[in-house]
Amino acid sequence: MAKPVDPSVIEDLVVANRVLVSEGVLDAFGHVSIRHPGDAERYLLGRNLAPALVTAKDIVEYDLDSNPIDAPPGFAHFHERFIHGEIYRARPDVHSVVHSHSPNIIPFGVTGHPLRALYHMSSFLAPGVPVYEIRDVAGMSNMLISNGPLGKSLAETLGEKDVALMRGHGNVIVARTLPMAVFRAVYTEVNARLQVQATSLGGPINFLAPEEGEKAMQVLENIHVRAWDIWKRAALEQIKG
Amino acid sequence: MAKPVDPSVIEDLVVANRVLVSEGVLDAFGHVSIRHPGDAERYLLGRNLAPALVTAKDIVEYDLDSNPIDAPPGFAHFHERFIHGEIYRARPDVHSVVHSHSPNIIPFGVTGHPLRALYHMSSFLAPGVPVYEIRDVAGMSNMLISNGPLGKSLAETLGEKDVALMRGHGNVIVARTLPMAVFRAVYTEVNARLQVQATSLGGPINFLAPEEGEKAMQVLENIHVRAWDIWKRAALEQIKG
Amino acid sequence: MAKPVDPSVIEDLVVANRVLVSEGVLDAFGHVSIRHPGDAERYLLGRNLAPALVTAKDIVEYDLDSNPIDAPPGFAHFHERFIHGEIYRARPDVHSVVHSHSPNIIPFGVTGHPLRALYHMSSFLAPGVPVYEIRDVAGMSNMLISNGPLGKSLAETLGEKDVALMRGHGNVIVARTLPMAVFRAVYTEVNARLQVQATSLGGPINFLAPEEGEKAMQVLENIHVRAWDIWKRAALEQIKG
Amino acid sequence: MAKPVDPSVIEDLVVANRVLVSEGVLDAFGHVSIRHPGDAERYLLGRNLAPALVTAKDIVEYDLDSNPIDAPPGFAHFHERFIHGEIYRARPDVHSVVHSHSPNIIPFGVTGHPLRALYHMSSFLAPGVPVYEIRDVAGMSNMLISNGPLGKSLAETLGEKDVALMRGHGNVIVARTLPMAVFRAVYTEVNARLQVQATSLGGPINFLAPEEGEKAMQVLENIHVRAWDIWKRAALEQIKG
Repeated sequence: MAKPVDPSVIEDLVVANRVLVSEGVLDAFGHVSIRHPGDAERYLLGRNLAPALVTAKDIVEYDLDSNPIDAPPGFAHFHERFIHGEIYRARPDVHSVVHSHSPNIIPFGVTGHPLRALYHMSSFLAPGVPVYEIRDVAGMSNMLISNGPLGKSLAETLGEKDVALMRGHGNVIVARTLPMAVFRAVYTEVNARLQVQATSLGGPINFLAPEEGEKAMQVLENIHVRAWDIWKRAALEQIKG
Repeated sequence: MAKPVDPSVIEDLVVANRVLVSEGVLDAFGHVSIRHPGDAERYLLGRNLAPALVTAKDIVEYDLDSNPIDAPPGFAHFHERFIHGEIYRARPDVHSVVHSHSPNIIPFGVTGHPLRALYHMSSFLAPGVPVYEIRDVAGMSNMLISNGPLGKSLAETLGEKDVALMRGHGNVIVARTLPMAVFRAVYTEVNARLQVQATSLGGPINFLAPEEGEKAMQVLENIHVRAWDIWKRAALEQIKG
Repeated sequence: MAKPVDPSVIEDLVVANRVLVSEGVLDAFGHVSIRHPGDAERYLLGRNLAPALVTAKDIVEYDLDSNPIDAPPGFAHFHERFIHGEIYRARPDVHSVVHSHSPNIIPFGVTGHPLRALYHMSSFLAPGVPVYEIRDVAGMSNMLISNGPLGKSLAETLGEKDVALMRGHGNVIVARTLPMAVFRAVYTEVNARLQVQATSLGGPINFLAPEEGEKAMQVLENIHVRAWDIWKRAALEQIKG
Repeated sequence: MAKPVDPSVIEDLVVANRVLVSEGVLDAFGHVSIRHPGDAERYLLGRNLAPALVTAKDIVEYDLDSNPIDAPPGFAHFHERFIHGEIYRARPDVHSVVHSHSPNIIPFGVTGHPLRALYHMSSFLAPGVPVYEIRDVAGMSNMLISNGPLGKSLAETLGEKDVALMRGHGNVIVARTLPMAVFRAVYTEVNARLQVQATSLGGPINFLAPEEGEKAMQVLENIHVRAWDIWKRAALEQIKG
């Protein structure tokens, strides 16, 4: 049976959907989830719906096999919800997952060119960004993570990292909290755009060193809520509009 | 005599005009049509008017020779409506056609660099994107498809594909339905922008394999309406605004 | 003494200022003028003011030496109004002049890379786009066309063309009518952006041939008002609030 | 004790925060300050808050060691306020400082490719743009200028210039007045974007010569307020809603 959740938690998940649309990470596709705050074996995700339309009533609870729990019978579910279930299973530290086709990141998934941390705002990229090749697992597929084993293989590629690219598809971004997952999704998109520009300038790029990345990430722990607060404020104005 | 059409069909065509403007595919130029739902030898297209201004009253019925049927005497007609008529004649499977100068696609028409499918959202590009060279047919022209024979030659270049580029001019995009034609127009523009970025990164690009493209296209059959629904909602708000 | 002008002519000049701001051609700087409809030896230009703020009351009449005629004593005048005066003197066919720092065009003025017509919408670039080098005339200057002789040298570089770039500064665009000058300013900016992308793709670019350019320009004569009409409509809505 | 400041001065500082957000220089991060008009040993800066939220009540006075003066006890302060304090100490001519992560500028800080003046609007870049390498001073750090000695080393890199880049972090921009600091921040961002494009075109770039830069900067002294005036007008409309 679905377990009760504080309405403010649900509101934040709705807000995250709007923010990710406003910031150009999601369009009509992609999704963001949180681990259930009262049950580590469950997660919360909107039903199969464009992110800009998600309201509190559309949030569904799933178990880690991605079975919906007590969802209304008319609800459709994301084919790729297994991304969320399998990452929550593999990564007990993770409490929020974003899957998107965030546009500027796509080129890095389809070239051998690694996405790397240009500056402190994207320091969470410094440990490296693996690329998931679905062909290695499923051969010629429809590119979707539409079952548990594919979700598991994606979670394995992600490993202990915060961001993984999915070749010819998109990316997955995780964090300990929802605001941090949103923050990382936004700045991964920015970093990707700027890294193309830096590459166009020619010559080697002086990326953040691993130790710089680690130290800068501690800063982001403190300051990312400043971004979340203004994004949330704008989203609530739009929702209550 | 013009045949009756369900008003909801006309509304969708009006909406498609607005969506394509909002998404940056059309500006003051370009057009979108549907095959007449009640007569396969007819199609429906706005009169010669900027797409942002099209209303239900501006939709005109044409035969496949692109003669207007019962249009008000004051109406002007697009010089390039032959694009639509000849494609509907050559491709019985096609029920919607978009012609645009969608900006990011222009560079692919004027270089030898083929537009190809970077990711599943543009998997309909995987079978290949032919480039129409009007010079081969008309020599030194004003670049317009302003008569039936030119429309026919463009339809021949398109062949069984969904997208064809027109060198120094724009592109034509077709589908079985209006929402899918709009979807393809939007994501062809996105793919073009991202492919320039991927090319800037250097090295080979791992495009969708033909089989991946085919399978991913089946997914789009199911999910493209999610995009259409939110685009339509926003367009109707703007129209009724 | 200043000669009477139909208020609709003045309104169009005010509208052109707003359109060029909305389309990203002008920001707080740059200006657009028309030749006086009742006196070929005079032109009409806003006083020294950001284009977004120009109203009918701010339009000033100038003679071809760029002396203001009957302007209110408190009015300041653009230092670079000589661009307009000298082009109107040298080019009897020209009835409108835009001077801007339109951003995407700047790179073409500072590299040896010529701006050329990628597609029919910018076919007016097909006869070639000269680059004005103020250093050849004024040595080390402040880059401004701040007197008659400099305006005359710029007009000489422009010659019989419709567009000239000004190295390290901006560009000047002329036409027989105000709507066409605005149209050319907008599509020169688009062409510049797309030409950078086409160049990034590598390999030769198949630009419009001179004869194609000439024929396509005749098409633009007919269709550019469709763009002007929607731009004007949006600008008037904004002005009337 | 905090010294009285004319409310119009405070309003301008609030406005500058909004303008820099609207123009894409600041997002949820970065800050702009002015030297105290009544005490050269003090400066005024918002408390630790997203720039879009800053109001008159959030402006705090600091001494040049960046100690807050009479700030409400609940106020948090920017960790990097030392950027401001140390630059005001080192540069008596400077009365306004902007620190940002202005996106298009980031690529120039991480490549050996120098940011240079493409055109007269960014002529203040002509004397050269130094790059601050925090590694040389602090080794492997969190990238932040979080104390006086780091602020001092950044001020030393800036020297007598108006703009300095901070590798893997952002930039600092200074001026004699707040409107000029804002102007420079906006056009440095534009110049960076256009310089990437010019570089993509290939071949050498004809940057402003030092003497041209110097002369063009004198022009900007006169005209930059035209930009400030429209930006301020728009910001006040937004604030007063």
